Amino acid sequence: MKVTPVKGTNDYLPKEVEIRDYLQQKILEVYLANGFEHIITPVIEDIENLDKSDGGENLNLIFKIMKRGEKLEEALSTGNEKEIADMGLRYDLTLPLTRYYANNRAKLQNPFKVIQIDRVYRAERPQKGRMREFYQCDIDIIGSDSWTAEVELITTTAKALHNIGFTRFGIRINDRRLLKAIIMGAGFAENECDSVCISLDKLDKIGFDGVKAELIEKGFDSANVEKLIESIGTTLFTLDDAEKLCGKLDCIDNLRKIMDAANSLADGFEVTYDMTLVRGQGYYTGTVFEISSPDFKGAIGGGGRYDNLIGKFLNEDIPAVGFSIGFERIFGILIEQGYTIPGQKKRIAVFYDPDTFADALVYAESLRNEYMVSVFARPK
Amino acid sequence: MKVTPVKGTNDYLPKEVEIRDYLQQKILEVYLANGFEHIITPVIEDIENLDKSDGGENLNLIFKIMKRGEKLEEALSTGNEKEIADMGLRYDLTLPLTRYYANNRAKLQNPFKVIQIDRVYRAERPQKGRMREFYQCDIDIIGSDSWTAEVELITTTAKALHNIGFTRFGIRINDRRLLKAIIMGAGFAENECDSVCISLDKLDKIGFDGVKAELIEKGFDSANVEKLIESIGTTLFTLDDAEKLCGKLDCIDNLRKIMDAANSLADGFEVTYDMTLVRGQGYYTGTVFEISSPDFKGAIGGGGRYDNLIGKFLNEDIPAVGFSIGFERIFGILIEQGYTIPGQKKRIAVFYDPDTFADALVYAESLRNEYMVSVFARPK
Repeated sequence: MKVTPVKGTNDYLPKEVEIRDYLQQKILEVYLANGFEHIITPVIEDIENLDKSDGGENLNLIFKIMKRGEKLEEALSTGNEKEIADMGLRYDLTLPLTRYYANNRAKLQNPFKVIQIDRVYRAERPQKGRMREFYQCDIDIIGSDSWTAEVELITTTAKALHNIGFTRFGIRINDRRLLKAIIMGAGFAENECDSVCISLDKLDKIGFDGVKAELIEKGFDSANVEKLIESIGTTLFTLDDAEKLCGKLDCIDNLRKIMDAANSLADGFEVTYDMTLVRGQGYYTGTVFEISSPDFKGAIGGGGRYDNLIGKFLNEDIPAVGFSIGFERIFGILIEQGYTIPGQKKRIAVFYDPDTFADALVYAESLRNEYMVSVFARPK
Repeated sequence: MKVTPVKGTNDYLPKEVEIRDYLQQKILEVYLANGFEHIITPVIEDIENLDKSDGGENLNLIFKIMKRGEKLEEALSTGNEKEIADMGLRYDLTLPLTRYYANNRAKLQNPFKVIQIDRVYRAERPQKGRMREFYQCDIDIIGSDSWTAEVELITTTAKALHNIGFTRFGIRINDRRLLKAIIMGAGFAENECDSVCISLDKLDKIGFDGVKAELIEKGFDSANVEKLIESIGTTLFTLDDAEKLCGKLDCIDNLRKIMDAANSLADGFEVTYDMTLVRGQGYYTGTVFEISSPDFKGAIGGGGRYDNLIGKFLNEDIPAVGFSIGFERIFGILIEQGYTIPGQKKRIAVFYDPDTFADALVYAESLRNEYMVSVFARPK
């Protein structure tokens, strides 16, 4: 039998679990105090729901569960691969949440402010830092189209990070509608925007020259490419610049309100506009945001508005916005920094001889208000 | 798309999750205070490890995960059903624990006192009270063959139940070796014991007459059946009766030590010998125990010694014993009794008008030491 866990999963040691439990508890505590409600959804979902969801690349990473018994035999006899699975492991917490909301709507607050801290699964090629089983900490607000929802998510997430002693971070924000307006303002066609976004998304890796080269290589009109790169400039591109370029837009006004309110409330972090922020998921429709830290290359959390996703389950559009903390990244950074749990009870041992076991248990119990106490047979 | 969760799984509502979180936290708290250490193992395990394990009937209930990419294509072309899966969802927490121990032994305390509170999966036919995704709360002691390990597990589990306000229960105990001695003492052959046990296990459902009828129907020697039923009697069968029947046995002495120590320490519960207690799992080798409650038909927890299981991963025998709380049953009973969380913070709302949102957030924050506070737009 194989003693190692399956690739991309972890056996967590007691010292690690202590810290993981503590971090999740402290994050949950802040989420709850801020009026969000904790729910639990199943790890397994109907395969059709997963396949039809807007998960982008994640749809290629679904772990599929085989049918059982007669249904499996039938499926195998058809020889059709797609017939064999009837369920799958969820690849994120958003798809289960939207299904949950559609299923339980009548029993939930409106707007519904919701917490999920749980495992998700992706059949990634195993490599350092890429897990196949990992935790996400999500808060979402369903049923509000107001900018105040974004502010609540941003301030609550920042408080959660502060509550676990994670303080070196900033939050970047953008709006997909504004990004599209900027790209189209430079002369690109609407159907070219997605491809331009994919290149722009690489700005922090390949720089302005790299993005420019890639766009030209993709065969876009070089005048448009020039204009786009020029208008973004090599210096900080602000919301005022965006307005100069695109005129007055509701989404600019919206971003200003979010940033003004969040920054007036912010304690030890800043929300900044980043016109190049894209975020991968296909389902985002408006604002997108990301947490960055000088201690980690890449995002340690992010989210955005996904106003059309719940409509897939219900016959109406329901506005929704979510913010997810990449728990494994936070955990990794804190572990590397030698994290210790503040004010933790000490772990001590009481030893017993063959005839003093019951007394040792009684004595150990008397110490448990102050310590975590284990009893052990005295080593011979 | 389907709005309901897949069969046998649950969408837990906020009120339910509050209670589930609280119960699990309170159980974990006691386990930790008593010197056990919390670990986390993956939900997915290698399919061979699952298939080769001693899970009894659970082996027929494994959710299997399909291979991916080229490996799946290869497997499908063989037409062999067994080739298609490479992983599966764990059906209990014991198999992952034994693998974990084999994998991490050098980094662990000896004896290793360990906690797992986590999900397991069984492809049961969906019916009331039978979940396909459910939680177990397990403590195990690995590396001790002493009766003191059983006492620690029993007293710690009882304290955990008391800590969540679950007080109406008793613990029944038996030893598979003693049960076997009694059955063989009545004249049965060694290879008949398992089948006799399966019938004896039904005593609480079908009574002495039912067991007798079933054994005769199975074709066992009626003199042996008579003798077995007679020796068990219709009144309480004690350890002294067992000794009269089988002579002095180490396992009787062992049960006496466990019961004496546990009952001298017991606070509000009793440990009693039940010669008919079997427990289903194939891997138990010695003591077995079960929690019963007048509020629930059937066991609400149980465990036993499984001294041979870890040997499957390592080339030596490692003694081990575990005790599992059936979390879903406890949760179900407490919910039915109208359980409320003692001393819980109240949930309140602060309403804001369009121009007072930031002020409302500041005011809400000032109340969060005392309350869980959500902010909402004032209804128009």
